[in-house]
Amino acid sequence: MNEFDYQQLDEIIHSRIRLAIMAVLISVDEAEFTFLRDKINATDGNLSTHLKKLDEAGYIAVNKSFESRKPVSRYLITQKGRKAFEMYVEHLEKLIKK
Amino acid sequence: MNEFDYQQLDEIIHSRIRLAIMAVLISVDEAEFTFLRDKINATDGNLSTHLKKLDEAGYIAVNKSFESRKPVSRYLITQKGRKAFEMYVEHLEKLIKK
Repeated sequence: MNEFDYQQLDEIIHSRIRLAIMAVLISVDEAEFTFLRDKINATDGNLSTHLKKLDEAGYIAVNKSFESRKPVSRYLITQKGRKAFEMYVEHLEKLIKK
Repeated sequence: MNEFDYQQLDEIIHSRIRLAIMAVLISVDEAEFTFLRDKINATDGNLSTHLKKLDEAGYIAVNKSFESRKPVSRYLITQKGRKAFEMYVEHLEKLIKK
């Protein structure tokens, strides 16, 4: 294996905003949209777009519910997402540790 | 400082191919185009595009010379590039170590 091969890095995770989303979600059970938004310092639109991409890849899931009659979306990392993140970090560390 | 703020990551470095270029260059004195290309597994066109971006940012420099009448380009990381890479890695590690 060639650790400098850039294609080893999962391109779904390797976007600044999606990487930040994954980094938050790996450390919590689940997170509300507004919590994520403030944590990673994104706009609503930008965050929505990238959450959708991660959801489509099966890396995150969303729990939608109503609380006090208001809709609440909670995001969580899936097992597939956790595995992908771990592999991504492994490749990344090999790359930057040189 | 908020370590999850995705905008902390230098977007010039944070592209898979440019990150791979920087990772190679940080570990060598200088590298020829073909060496870089094979090392990171890029196409000529793609590599050229991204070397130009890093050059414009002042992160790398190029030494052009002739050897046996053939033009040879050698790329090296600049002091600015080295500093940017170190800061990038520092932010990245804070982000993924959570």
